[in-house]
Amino acid sequence: MVSEHEVRAALAAVMDPELGRNIVDLGMVRDVALADGRVTFTLALTTLACPLKEQIERNARLAVLALPDVQSVDIQLGEMTAQEKARLHGGEQPEGLAEKLNHVKHVIAVMSGKGGVGKSLVAGLLATSLRRSGYQVGVLDADITGPSIPKMFFPNGARPGSSPLAILPAETRTGIRVMSINLLLEAEDQAVIWRGPLISGVIRQFWTDVLWGELDYLVVDLPPGTSDASLTVLQSLPMSGVLLVTSPQDLAGMVVRKAAQMVQQMGVPILGLVENMSYFVCPDTGKQHEIFGASRADRMAARLGVPFLGRLPIDPRIATLCDAGQIEFYAAEAFQAIAEQVVKLAPGARQPAAPPA
Amino acid sequence: MVSEHEVRAALAAVMDPELGRNIVDLGMVRDVALADGRVTFTLALTTLACPLKEQIERNARLAVLALPDVQSVDIQLGEMTAQEKARLHGGEQPEGLAEKLNHVKHVIAVMSGKGGVGKSLVAGLLATSLRRSGYQVGVLDADITGPSIPKMFFPNGARPGSSPLAILPAETRTGIRVMSINLLLEAEDQAVIWRGPLISGVIRQFWTDVLWGELDYLVVDLPPGTSDASLTVLQSLPMSGVLLVTSPQDLAGMVVRKAAQMVQQMGVPILGLVENMSYFVCPDTGKQHEIFGASRADRMAARLGVPFLGRLPIDPRIATLCDAGQIEFYAAEAFQAIAEQVVKLAPGARQPAAPPA
Repeated sequence: MVSEHEVRAALAAVMDPELGRNIVDLGMVRDVALADGRVTFTLALTTLACPLKEQIERNARLAVLALPDVQSVDIQLGEMTAQEKARLHGGEQPEGLAEKLNHVKHVIAVMSGKGGVGKSLVAGLLATSLRRSGYQVGVLDADITGPSIPKMFFPNGARPGSSPLAILPAETRTGIRVMSINLLLEAEDQAVIWRGPLISGVIRQFWTDVLWGELDYLVVDLPPGTSDASLTVLQSLPMSGVLLVTSPQDLAGMVVRKAAQMVQQMGVPILGLVENMSYFVCPDTGKQHEIFGASRADRMAARLGVPFLGRLPIDPRIATLCDAGQIEFYAAEAFQAIAEQVVKLAPGARQPAAPPA
Repeated sequence: MVSEHEVRAALAAVMDPELGRNIVDLGMVRDVALADGRVTFTLALTTLACPLKEQIERNARLAVLALPDVQSVDIQLGEMTAQEKARLHGGEQPEGLAEKLNHVKHVIAVMSGKGGVGKSLVAGLLATSLRRSGYQVGVLDADITGPSIPKMFFPNGARPGSSPLAILPAETRTGIRVMSINLLLEAEDQAVIWRGPLISGVIRQFWTDVLWGELDYLVVDLPPGTSDASLTVLQSLPMSGVLLVTSPQDLAGMVVRKAAQMVQQMGVPILGLVENMSYFVCPDTGKQHEIFGASRADRMAARLGVPFLGRLPIDPRIATLCDAGQIEFYAAEAFQAIAEQVVKLAPGARQPAAPPA
């Protein structure tokens, strides 16, 4: 007859599609008992109203029935306690302790509303430029379903450290502290299929339970949209301001204006607007091609009543460096001026203590 | 002394930031009474736990106090009934009636996980190509916070029709039926600041309460991410399959693989993979530049075990046509082959009744 260990190993292949993790790691499998080819256990769900309940139960049953000598499987459905649910994504750390130990002078969110205009690139370059100027810098990746930050900074992947007190951010080669959901996943392309409340919960944890320590600037990379992630960041974090990113396409501009309206409605300052993918310089002719249409970001900034901070070209080298985890080594002179303006514009900005080693 | 009408008009300038509509239209203002320079009314919130309660109340008070001869304002806070909340985004139509009258043969979602790779463009071109082949086609824009579909199809904007029974989709010049949140907003750049449950609710309504009628294909344009909108579409709509869109950047590929994993976990077929922004043809030299890196979509498709359907170039004319509402008039020969493969691959595909007039 199979052992409890073998039953648990088989069940570890069953995923909760909404949580994106297996039901054993999630602590959902309890009270496993074996007798005469019959396996019984309790499946504790986050909620009995779980729409995927039957799917999970069926997959769990099939996984156990596939084991040798198992004739029948008896599954009791149960529900986790509120505390267990809260801990589901938080390990066993005492909540909010890190927050008390952190001292973050400026929190700047990079936002667009629109996807794929280069928010993460701008967040990465801003962090890189600020670090080069000698500031202590962190990057909080608030894009939970499509996180891009770790791939830009870590050529060989990275893991956060952990202590009994808090989660420790991963550190890049130039000393930027990074936290992202992708640092916690087993595989970088593992899907995180969560509804809004879980998304918001993990973003809040990245603020309260990560030991950022002393930071001059925490750069928050927001996902597209004006829903849960953006709402949570703008409502829950002590924002210094938002850096807006757009592209020349009018269609992108429309969505960016939605984001700007959200930020303004929530009473958070917009530090300025950056246009990415403004033009492509043909390497053969040196001529600039406005691939996504004529730039109109300066007019858009004027219309929004915010400073226009600059344009960035489409540079194939950036795509290559980002894919290779080398964004810190991009010669981003064009971006240095933008970063300097951000430093001037961020409320309460201060000088760094000393340049980095 | 001011009239109740004037008080309501003043309050119509006060927005609920989370719902993105003004508090009068939302039915939140009740029992307005006026006496001796004193205005009293009830403010019925969706929930008394509303985090923006104080902000809304303060703005409402200031709006009324700004009226001539108003000396004081007395606001009673209340809460809507469950039914009122449910109707908030649904008007007064009997729920789900349209669904009974609709007959949609194939529902195909265009998804990427990643933002800005051209999901909406592919959805628009797919709808256009299918329509050119004589099919009855609809487009359900499931991107609620960053909707791109209306701008591509309607140069002068559009409004959905309405009947006592249902919402009628807007119709493009070639007869494609379109539903999008942006058709319902007063201004195209108005922000929709909703948390996940509202996002999911409106997407379900676009299926149940819109009179799509007889359709061969309903193309669903998904937003980036693997959270509420994607979950709701994949769980609630009778999916024929998903068309995945990627771009050459490795970073995009990683996020697209997350989306693919989600679709597979939910048991929905992936019809195939399309790569957008594969290359730019320099108009001066005719040379192809792989601006976002070398294409690897064929390998990616093989790894996912799904058909690779083709590549699309970066074509500045597309950006221009999309911005001008002229996507239906793009000579998309390259896309016609992709659309034909989708027709072959979509389960249960049928021949169209007759070509359009």
